[in-house]
Formats: sequence, C-alpha cells, structure tokens
Amino acid sequence: MPAAEHDPHGADQRRPPLAVLKFGGSSVANAERIRAAAARIARERRAGAELVVVVSAMGDTTDELLALADALTGEAGAEPDPRELDMLLATGEHQSATLVSMALHAQGVRAISLTGAQAGITTDGRYGKARIANIEPRRVRTELDHGNVVIVAGFQGQSSAAADLAETTTLGRGGSDTTAVALAAALRADQCRIFTDVRGIFTADPRLEPEARQLIVIGYEEMLELAHQGAGVMQTRAVELAWVNDVEIEVLSSFEDAPGTRITEDPLVEQRNKVRGIAHDRNVAKVTLVAVPDRPGVARSVFQPLAEAAINVDMIVQNVGHGGTTDMSFTVPRVELARAKKVLAAVSEELGAQELTSDDSVAKVSIVGAGLHNAPGYAARMFGTLADAGVNIEMISTSEVRITCMIAEAELETAVRALHAAFELARPDPVDAAVVR
Amino acid sequence: MPAAEHDPHGADQRRPPLAVLKFGGSSVANAERIRAAAARIARERRAGAELVVVVSAMGDTTDELLALADALTGEAGAEPDPRELDMLLATGEHQSATLVSMALHAQGVRAISLTGAQAGITTDGRYGKARIANIEPRRVRTELDHGNVVIVAGFQGQSSAAADLAETTTLGRGGSDTTAVALAAALRADQCRIFTDVRGIFTADPRLEPEARQLIVIGYEEMLELAHQGAGVMQTRAVELAWVNDVEIEVLSSFEDAPGTRITEDPLVEQRNKVRGIAHDRNVAKVTLVAVPDRPGVARSVFQPLAEAAINVDMIVQNVGHGGTTDMSFTVPRVELARAKKVLAAVSEELGAQELTSDDSVAKVSIVGAGLHNAPGYAARMFGTLADAGVNIEMISTSEVRITCMIAEAELETAVRALHAAFELARPDPVDAAVVR
Repeated sequence: MPAAEHDPHGADQRRPPLAVLKFGGSSVANAERIRAAAARIARERRAGAELVVVVSAMGDTTDELLALADALTGEAGAEPDPRELDMLLATGEHQSATLVSMALHAQGVRAISLTGAQAGITTDGRYGKARIANIEPRRVRTELDHGNVVIVAGFQGQSSAAADLAETTTLGRGGSDTTAVALAAALRADQCRIFTDVRGIFTADPRLEPEARQLIVIGYEEMLELAHQGAGVMQTRAVELAWVNDVEIEVLSSFEDAPGTRITEDPLVEQRNKVRGIAHDRNVAKVTLVAVPDRPGVARSVFQPLAEAAINVDMIVQNVGHGGTTDMSFTVPRVELARAKKVLAAVSEELGAQELTSDDSVAKVSIVGAGLHNAPGYAARMFGTLADAGVNIEMISTSEVRITCMIAEAELETAVRALHAAFELARPDPVDAAVVR
Repeated sequence: MPAAEHDPHGADQRRPPLAVLKFGGSSVANAERIRAAAARIARERRAGAELVVVVSAMGDTTDELLALADALTGEAGAEPDPRELDMLLATGEHQSATLVSMALHAQGVRAISLTGAQAGITTDGRYGKARIANIEPRRVRTELDHGNVVIVAGFQGQSSAAADLAETTTLGRGGSDTTAVALAAALRADQCRIFTDVRGIFTADPRLEPEARQLIVIGYEEMLELAHQGAGVMQTRAVELAWVNDVEIEVLSSFEDAPGTRITEDPLVEQRNKVRGIAHDRNVAKVTLVAVPDRPGVARSVFQPLAEAAINVDMIVQNVGHGGTTDMSFTVPRVELARAKKVLAAVSEELGAQELTSDDSVAKVSIVGAGLHNAPGYAARMFGTLADAGVNIEMISTSEVRITCMIAEAELETAVRALHAAFELARPDPVDAAVVR
C-alpha cells in the first residue's frame, strides 16, 4: 500500500499510554468533589492518556450501610449475613462509579461505568475478604477502544462468570486499592495513581510530627511495613500485589496539584539513610496470661483459638520460665480486645493460668527502612533515643526492614518526635536528587 | 418399597403453595418498616407457604439518587446518560433486598436476596423502560428448594446472561409490580400479593370522596382503565401481564392486617352494577392548534413529532372544519407540557396555524365498568349528572369500559362526588356476597 509508506506518522502509531487512577471515598464524598475528581480525570484524558478509573463508595456510604445492617440484625452479638452484607456494600461503589461517569459526560468526556463483574474481576468467593482470582478485562479493553474513560466500581468482584450463579464479594476495607493495582497489572498499564486525602507518604504522621517530610519514592518492602505498622494510606494487599506484579504506584492528593510519593522497586536503597520513616499504631492492646504452665503445646492452646476467631496476634513475648510457669504477653488489635478476652477466658481456665490481664492504653512505634536488619547500630540508637526521652519500652519485635517497640500510648507523640529527630528524617535525602522517574 | 405404602402422608406429599409478595417503597422506607415487613413475611412463611418476595427501593431512595444524578449532569436541559442512570437506580433495590433478607434472618427465617440478574430476569435492553424478555428462574427454584425465602430486587433485569457484557436495565416507575407478576407467572405461583400503602382499590379516591368503598374484586380490564386514568395503585403493565398470564393479584395494605382487593377475571361481571369506580387524573394539560389547514396529513404532521419525542397524547378532538381550517385539541401529561409546546411551536409555524394555546388547569374524570359501551344510558347519566352539578365538559373520550370527560381542575372534587352518588357506589355491591375466593 503506497499510501502507508508516505504516512509520516506510520512509525509512531503506538497505543497511547494507559493509566489506572483510583479515587478514594473522601475524593468522591459529594457532588462537588465528584465534579472536581471528574475535572482532574478530564485533564488527564485531554493530555492523551487512555484511562481506567477505580472508585470507592462516596464518603460515609459504607459506614451508613453498615449501620443500617446492624440496626436490622439487631440482637447483641448477631452479625449480618456476610453474603447479604457484601451485596449491600457493593452498591456504594456502583453508585459512585455511575456518578463519576455522569460528571465526566457533563464535562464533555466520553465515559462508561462498569461493575466489578463487568470489568471481568472474579474472586475466590470469600465474603467480606475475597481475593481476586482472575481478571479478564475483555470489556474494559473494548470500552477503551471505543474511546471511553472506563470507571470501575472498586472493592468487589464476582465469584463466577455466570450471571445467575455469580455472587458479589467484597475485598475488605481499602479493597479499591487492590482493584486498581490488579487492573493495572492485568492491563499492563503504564501508571497506577492512587488519589487520596493526603499528599503522599511521609517520614512520620504530620499530625504528630510537624517536621515530617514527604518522601519522593519508597520501596515496596518499606511501604509494606509502614502500612502494616499503621500508616493507613495504602492497603497492604495492594502493595504486595504491586510488588509481585512490578506495578509502580503513585500516591497523591486529589485536592491539590502536587507530585505524590512513588512506591516502586527502589534502586538507590543501598545509598540511602537507612531509616525511611516512623510508623505508629494506636489500634493495639496488650494481653498477658500470668503464670501459665511452662510446657510444650501451651502456645498452640493459646493461639489456635484466637486464629479460629480470626483475631490477628502481632507481637508475642514469652518470659523465661521459673518454678514451672511462665508469663505470655502478646498484642491484638484494640478493636478486637473484647472478643479476644472472651476467647482467652476459656483458654486461661483450661490451662490453669493464674490470671488474664489486658492493657488498652498502649501503642506501637516503628522505624522502617530497607537493610535495618543488617545494621545493628540502628536498634541501639532507637532504644537509646527512647530511653533518653523517658519512654519505657514494654515489648520489642523486628523484621527485615523494621524495628517496633510497644510503649504507653500517652508517650507516643514524644517517641515519634524523638525518633524523627534522631534519624534526621526532616533533612531531605540527598539521594533523592538522583531519582529519575 | 413397603415402607412407603404405610406412610400415611404418602398421598399428600405435594409441594406447598407458592406465593409471590411485593413490598413497595413506603413499606420498606426505614429500619422499623423493614422489620414490620419481615414480620409479615415470617408469619406467612410459618404458615407453610414457599415465598418469593419482590421489593422496591427504600422510600425516597430513587428520588434522592435522581437528584444526585441531576446535580452532576448540571447544565439545564442535559439529562443523565440512561445507561448510567439505570445502573445507579438499580442499587436502590439491591440495598432493600439485602436489608429485608437480613431482617428475616434476625427473625429466625432462612432467606436469601437475589438481584434481577441472579433471579434470571432478562430484558430487551431498553434503558429506563425495559420490558422483560424472559425469566429463567433456575436460581430462584434452587433457593426455594433449600428452604429459603427468596427476596428479589424489583424494577430491574439484565440485558444478557453473560456477566461482563450484561447491562442493568430498569423497568420504569412502578416496575417492581411487573417484576412480581412476571415472577408469579414464570413460577406458576398460587398467589401474587402486592403490599402497598393503601388497603386496596376503591370506588373513588377516598381523599376526594369520603364515601368511597373498597372493592372486594375487580376485573383486569376495569383495573387497567382505572390505572390508565390515574388510579396510581398499580402499574398498568403489571395488570396487562397478569391478565395475559391469568395471574390473580391481591392489592393490600402492608400496615394493617385486612383483606385487600383481588384483581382477576371477574366471573360475575354480568350481574354487577356496571359502573365500578370513578377515576381522576390531574396530570393533564390541554393543547389547541387554532385554525390549522383542513387537509389530509395534518394530523400526522402534528402527532408524529410528539411520538418521536415520546410524549403520550391522550384525548384528541378535531372540530368540523369551516373556511378551509379547523381547530385541533388534545391532551398531554401536564409534566410534559413544556416539552410538547417546544415541539409544537415548530409544527405550528410549518402548518401555518393561527395560534398555539394551552391550558394546564384541567383534569380528567372517568367512570369505569365492564360493559359500559353496550349500555348507552350510562353516558347520558354521566353527562346529565355533571351538568346538574354545574360542571362544564370540555372534551369526551370513551373505550369499551370507560367514559372520560375533561373538565376544569377546580371542579374535580365536585364532579367525583356527584358521579359517585349518581352511580350509587357507596352502597355495597350485592353481587359481592356471592364472591367465593
């Protein structure tokens, strides 16, 4: 075809870049914010990118629906049927997806909303905490080819591909992040941008430490530990999924036009100040079984029933036994303390423990950074800094990239600020100057 | 199997009766009413029936979602995309279905909610006014066999059976009635009961005529005319569907425990007082094209554009022409008057009409009863009664079972009460004593 030979654009006819954007509940909380989100999407679209947009439910919708469900389930202790609850909660994302689509239409942008099922997202079928089993984004690609911005209802997927047998399942709190990362992986997107109500990932919570500095980039593993240790910006499963699939995420504010923080494989990790951030978590309570028999099998007797009740146990300390007994302390999420105590009362009696005590006025503070494990000086500096600040350490746990101390909640702010100063986190990282996107 | 021979219940092992119940929006408007509806359902279930329950969206949910959509669509004149709007509105019924199911669980009744898609309802795919194309209630039957009360989200169906290509379509206002009747037909249910905020069908609107009496039974055709002429209790399509499929409907109150009105093929129609009820409708406006040319094709020039704009024209009167021109009057729904005038302004100019006038202070009043057409005395009595009451008749139209007069809206109450008295509708129908269910 001679005509093609003369087409100057012939060599450049590549597909435009594809970005997955995700807008959280606060970014679509009302008509005004939906319009603002749509304006942002419209701008990116006009710049030429193909866009898939994942949305959460509007503002407090999920909490309001949960309250209605609780009101109807009624009796103390009874919980709403998980299947019905998932059907109910998924409507929140259906609503916001259609509304964002309408707002784009009003701004002259072609758009279509899809449910999780229409986006081809199937899950393992576990209500309330489903995992994505497969994404077959046939429909998403078709709609992109038709020139549409594709709005996908986050937080959900179907248990099967047959319309009448499929059940709606939700991915758990923050599941829309996972939807976005999974779609970015399945579509081999060039970008995955998480729009939220903060500007990015900080060296500490700016509400506790005004000197906290926004990070330009952070490694997957470090981000995972920050998220696990209470930095609520990203769902940990979304970070894991991004890591496994090599999807680079940018976390940024939907309210200001400023660069966010990139979560990626950090090639400069060896050259950095090893401590990257201070995390803290108030959702923690300490439980102690006093004077349990010091014999094999005791730990299983304690932790098996908690696991069966789906209560996450985090830090565990068992003192050196004396006189045939030992004390066993561990932490549980504070919101689960009442349930944990109910489970443990039976266990305690069965084991003949002397006493079951608990403390919900504690908190965790962590330093996070790749390679901490191989640099023992950091642990010593953390413990010394807390001691100098008069903060007593009640428990310690460590991972490859993290050291965590349990302290009294009243001393949390003091601890965060002392550690932030000791590890010089307010000072811009000189390595960042070398970061090339 | 000798054992079976000795089973005294062997001969009676029939399937229990199957009833389809429908609860409208006001019957599930809040947690308290949902609990009350669930209590009613639980009672019927404990009496032994298998139950399929169709629900509308809670109270004002649909209106609130419409308001949000309008706020986002913004610009005057622009309307929300019909596809997105259907996805949005269908969430209202998803929510109420799951909540009714949860409320039943709390009362110890096994129940499961299904979306229109899960209930196997497919439509012709027309957004906002879809018609049910097919019902394949495989899943409904399975859940009934498992001992569940099956709660079905009303008002909706999917355009296809493939999860990722299917689109959610709604059946139009009042569409949940249609869902209930269609399910009753597909499942060959023994009963179809429509729970609403009135006790049944009355001889006139009790707000206008305190003497109005509840009917025990009414024929499909009469009900259809009553519904068409403004009695808002049932969607006309649902009545048509019931008639075609020979489904008997009972309309009754969800707030009191009293018998309602049965809509059925009325075998006693020949023995009745022929006028069964007075209907009225305020949602009407009169439009007149003054002095249009009196030549073939004019009517098409007027009504074709209105039909294309989906504006329903009802009564039409064309005066005898004189001097080569004629006046043409007809009624449109009052809520469509502004749109109709826009369409007709162009038509009027094109035809060279002298003037386009309209009047939105009119109303329609009708007498309805099987066989009216063959009993000319009724028309004369209607016109005479209105004349005696000082009510001027502006237009007249008739059908097999109805005579309708257009009058001034200010005289509507006078007209309804005069007709109710003239046709002795307050007096119990002696034939009803013979009605056996």
